[in-house]
Amino acid sequence: MNHSKAEYEPEYYYYDYNAEPTDPPKEVILPCDPTADDRIFHVCMLSLSLVVVLILAVLTRKHKFCHGFARGSSSIFSPANFLDQTQAKGPIVAVFGLLFSKLSVLVIAPDPLPFSKDTPGNIKEYMKILAIFYYPVLYYPLLVCCTLQHKAGYVLGTLLSFSHLAVQTWQVFDCPKTPEIYAYYALLASLPQLACFAYLCVQFPVLFVRGPNADEDLDSSYYTNYVKLLFKKRSSTASSSAPDKPTLAERILEVPKSYIYIPDKVFRFPLKLAVSAFVSLVATYHTALLLVVLVVPTLHIVRAGIDENIAFLLLGFGVVLSDDRKEVVEIVTFYTWLLEVCYLCAMTLSCLVSLIMLMRSMVLHRSNLRGLYKGDVYSVYNSQKTIRPSKPGIVCWMGLTGYQAAIVCVGMAVQTVVFFICFLFLVFLIIIPIFYGRNVILFIHLRPGWVTLTLVTVLQHVTAKFAFIKKEAGTTDLNNRGSLFLLTYLLFLVNTVVGLIVAIWRMVITALYNIVHLGRADISLLHRSAEAYDPAYRYYAHSLKVEVSQSHPVMKAFCGLLLDIMVEGGRAGQKIRDAEEGVQEITEKKETGRQRIRARWQLLYTLVNNPSLLGSRKHFQTQQTPETVPNGTPTCSSKQGGEKEAGKTPA
Amino acid sequence: MNHSKAEYEPEYYYYDYNAEPTDPPKEVILPCDPTADDRIFHVCMLSLSLVVVLILAVLTRKHKFCHGFARGSSSIFSPANFLDQTQAKGPIVAVFGLLFSKLSVLVIAPDPLPFSKDTPGNIKEYMKILAIFYYPVLYYPLLVCCTLQHKAGYVLGTLLSFSHLAVQTWQVFDCPKTPEIYAYYALLASLPQLACFAYLCVQFPVLFVRGPNADEDLDSSYYTNYVKLLFKKRSSTASSSAPDKPTLAERILEVPKSYIYIPDKVFRFPLKLAVSAFVSLVATYHTALLLVVLVVPTLHIVRAGIDENIAFLLLGFGVVLSDDRKEVVEIVTFYTWLLEVCYLCAMTLSCLVSLIMLMRSMVLHRSNLRGLYKGDVYSVYNSQKTIRPSKPGIVCWMGLTGYQAAIVCVGMAVQTVVFFICFLFLVFLIIIPIFYGRNVILFIHLRPGWVTLTLVTVLQHVTAKFAFIKKEAGTTDLNNRGSLFLLTYLLFLVNTVVGLIVAIWRMVITALYNIVHLGRADISLLHRSAEAYDPAYRYYAHSLKVEVSQSHPVMKAFCGLLLDIMVEGGRAGQKIRDAEEGVQEITEKKETGRQRIRARWQLLYTLVNNPSLLGSRKHFQTQQTPETVPNGTPTCSSKQGGEKEAGKTPA
Repeated sequence: MNHSKAEYEPEYYYYDYNAEPTDPPKEVILPCDPTADDRIFHVCMLSLSLVVVLILAVLTRKHKFCHGFARGSSSIFSPANFLDQTQAKGPIVAVFGLLFSKLSVLVIAPDPLPFSKDTPGNIKEYMKILAIFYYPVLYYPLLVCCTLQHKAGYVLGTLLSFSHLAVQTWQVFDCPKTPEIYAYYALLASLPQLACFAYLCVQFPVLFVRGPNADEDLDSSYYTNYVKLLFKKRSSTASSSAPDKPTLAERILEVPKSYIYIPDKVFRFPLKLAVSAFVSLVATYHTALLLVVLVVPTLHIVRAGIDENIAFLLLGFGVVLSDDRKEVVEIVTFYTWLLEVCYLCAMTLSCLVSLIMLMRSMVLHRSNLRGLYKGDVYSVYNSQKTIRPSKPGIVCWMGLTGYQAAIVCVGMAVQTVVFFICFLFLVFLIIIPIFYGRNVILFIHLRPGWVTLTLVTVLQHVTAKFAFIKKEAGTTDLNNRGSLFLLTYLLFLVNTVVGLIVAIWRMVITALYNIVHLGRADISLLHRSAEAYDPAYRYYAHSLKVEVSQSHPVMKAFCGLLLDIMVEGGRAGQKIRDAEEGVQEITEKKETGRQRIRARWQLLYTLVNNPSLLGSRKHFQTQQTPETVPNGTPTCSSKQGGEKEAGKTPA
Repeated sequence: MNHSKAEYEPEYYYYDYNAEPTDPPKEVILPCDPTADDRIFHVCMLSLSLVVVLILAVLTRKHKFCHGFARGSSSIFSPANFLDQTQAKGPIVAVFGLLFSKLSVLVIAPDPLPFSKDTPGNIKEYMKILAIFYYPVLYYPLLVCCTLQHKAGYVLGTLLSFSHLAVQTWQVFDCPKTPEIYAYYALLASLPQLACFAYLCVQFPVLFVRGPNADEDLDSSYYTNYVKLLFKKRSSTASSSAPDKPTLAERILEVPKSYIYIPDKVFRFPLKLAVSAFVSLVATYHTALLLVVLVVPTLHIVRAGIDENIAFLLLGFGVVLSDDRKEVVEIVTFYTWLLEVCYLCAMTLSCLVSLIMLMRSMVLHRSNLRGLYKGDVYSVYNSQKTIRPSKPGIVCWMGLTGYQAAIVCVGMAVQTVVFFICFLFLVFLIIIPIFYGRNVILFIHLRPGWVTLTLVTVLQHVTAKFAFIKKEAGTTDLNNRGSLFLLTYLLFLVNTVVGLIVAIWRMVITALYNIVHLGRADISLLHRSAEAYDPAYRYYAHSLKVEVSQSHPVMKAFCGLLLDIMVEGGRAGQKIRDAEEGVQEITEKKETGRQRIRARWQLLYTLVNNPSLLGSRKHFQTQQTPETVPNGTPTCSSKQGGEKEAGKTPA
């Protein structure tokens, strides 16, 4: 490579885009077998896991009481209570992150399953299918160790996660470079796994030291705190008068604030959505890694391969960049370097967009859940729906985490491609011509057409403001109708031409908006009347219904309270006093109200545990058809009714 | 051309794709000067128009009374009352159609203005700008003749439209072929203009015979009929009990019905929207014509130019279609013919889509207007807004027709391109391989991956239905939570893979939906929280506000009624009895109600004509700030209040 500077090129063009070609074109990486053989390791781990599960099965005694609202997971066949918002989310989230990392590695791995080496092509697809079922089974004991709420479980979990972490770290140090795609791909792709294992290694001992969490699910103070806050809030908003209109600065500050998720003490994120958010984060990392690894090394190889033949090749297409062949090589190398920069910028931008959208999703999840807890179904779904678990709801709820991760991956890939094209346009059609002093005038030149359109638009705005709108006594009305109609007619053709610009702007803004929001399942990309046809949004909407109907904090608070009354009459008195501390503030006047509320909740609890009694209720017998029962399901809707109709007498 | 049949090609391949090449490659069309020179014609017509306007100005006497609600257009400076739903829409709509036709011709015409021949390139843009202002002025007298409601106006209008029609027809017959783009383009492009002129030639004599329409605007029976129907409807729906749920067949039949606009006797389309709809129709025609004319003749020329050199050219790219050169020519000719067929199919499909969307828009316009008349602002705008004319509202209202036409044009162009690509994929990747018996297996072959995904999805649906949903006493609840959580965990990775398909489906459905609806201004292509950022929808939403606030039929009915009471006390008695015929049916019990309603409307009418009095009203004085006045504008909102709060006492 000749490093002489051409006259017209500024210095920074020489950044380091020709540092690469001095390396050998392609480093040969030999297949590497780690000392800790993958096959033996997996066989050992499987046996160890089986032993762990058996030990846990023996240790576990079933909690007989109240199977529906289990305190801690009662069986080794239930990985975690996904509908409980009070448990330690960390280990469960980490295990899901592990699983997703495994998936994104095995999709392009030569050996999807560790048990077969150099898998032949014809059985590779079967191996991949098996792997998809194998890894959840392999990591299952980790989950059980955490959720069983047993000291021995924590010890065994520590053991398992330590062995995983140790062997994987050993393997990575043994073989940092692999012949797949890019030398360090395997190393980089295993980082999230190692991080998750490390987190588990720390978390299990911590859980062991702290001991099983007694305050889980219905015992947790979270639900009673939520109820307290609900009452406090209502009284504080009632006391303050109508707030002043926010200023412009405040409204502008609101926008970035609405994209930042600040955890809230009296609101815990549902486990399922927390898992989705973390898996989306891992998915962003893996997609970004794949996007870089699949393209950038290829570009490097192409750049390394540029020699003087390129001048002849370009000549064949009639392109003459320079008379000097070496200069041609330099220019082409520089352009490929620009290509790489554009690509990396696009990738970074799409990563950023994904992260911002993830945060925004979390903010929206919270406000949606709060809205639904309050019974504000219309503003969330844009139509009136019954919040109760349904068949499609369950299916969507089961799959949501996976769908969310997949949508984030596809969204990032599409965003990268689109942003890459935009950056290419920007760089090759605007920035480079500016440096060379060409073509810029095209963008600044005042065309008479543009001037006319601008003038006419301004004219319409000005006349609208000063001639056609009449403000009197605080109201607005039309004025000078005749002139308005005349102007409307005369400017029809100009407005049609303006309309062309509007139409193109509409296309651009729609495409950009939808591409930026492609990775978000919580908003529909279609018009509000067709929202249900957006598959991702449909999944989200249905899942939310299941989530809300099964884990309404107010319902859980009172169920927990009533449970305590029944189990241990004495201790409950204090609890009720605690819970009603907030209620007292506003119900001091109505002494009977408290007893009435208690009666309502006792009725509710009875119905939740004995839905068959529902048929014998008063209002149910008067309205025979199941469709016309208002808010038919007791678990989800009665509590909303309870929250709203607090002043009315129970049926 | 050799017409021998190759063995493997079925007969229909020979349709007529090689009929064209026998023609001479390009017919030479000489520039043609019509006997009726365009320049002289336009000078004559301009003078004639000026004379017509002057005559009309002399004949017109200003209606002094009630300038706001003019009966007929009172001045020659007002082309038409665009806010009056009762006038004859035909001629006005035709003039707008004419104007748009002119615009779409002059955009690509060599001489935008008829006064300069062979316009040099440097002043062409200025000429185009002038032409955009010239044609509205040229056709202005046609509009005035129609809206002045004067017998002499109709005679002059007939004269004007006949001279336009005669000369244009003569010119077209003189020079059916022109050298622009495609020989018959000028002829085809002038058809809508000729049709509009012919319509005007028929309509003006008809209007002359019928005489000026006395029943226009506030005098029209339309408004009183509307009010009568409103009362009748309410009582009929009140009497019938809750309707049965529609069956599946009924619901399926509802879908095509909602796309067909059936005119409704008691609802007249606002003039502005009627004009928009007709202009959109003309725009569809012109866009389709341009799309055909710009591409198909070029394809024909390309096909005619295919000779045996193509075989060498393809060989240069390494493509060998056949060893026989003549066969190569035949295959390539056939493929270009297929290309043309695909293009025409795509164009036809996009035309159809545009027409269907236009119909659907009209249905939606009607339901939106009706909703807003009823005060149902939320379901139309998805947020609570005050319906009153505002500055942006007026600007949007002025431009709506033009914007709508431009959006339809751009939408059709984009649709054609996208559908063309889809058809190409369909034909070249699916249909042709099927005929040749190749590659088909790829689509039908049962890959184990697909089978697994399908099985898992089915498994989830089945278990959701039979294991996880418990139906008891008409309500649904979750069942077997442990197994549900277990399945959720184990199928996480499979669901991620299913999610990839969902994500791709989401992309496809979003792109298709938005492209199909690109030509519609009445729905937003963005998510409901960002609807205002869609420029076309913003224009529509704002225009609708102006339309509703200024031409609410109930307000107009009662304003007309009260006007009559004031003008001609005697005759009005009958009218009031007519109007209250419907009211009586439901207000027989309350005898005082009728007087109260009349008092309300008299108050309203006083306020409409004297908005300055509003400041001295009771409720206005208690609420000082203009923002907090509920439904601040009297013209639009008081009547809504009146319609709703019919039973309450007036303020």
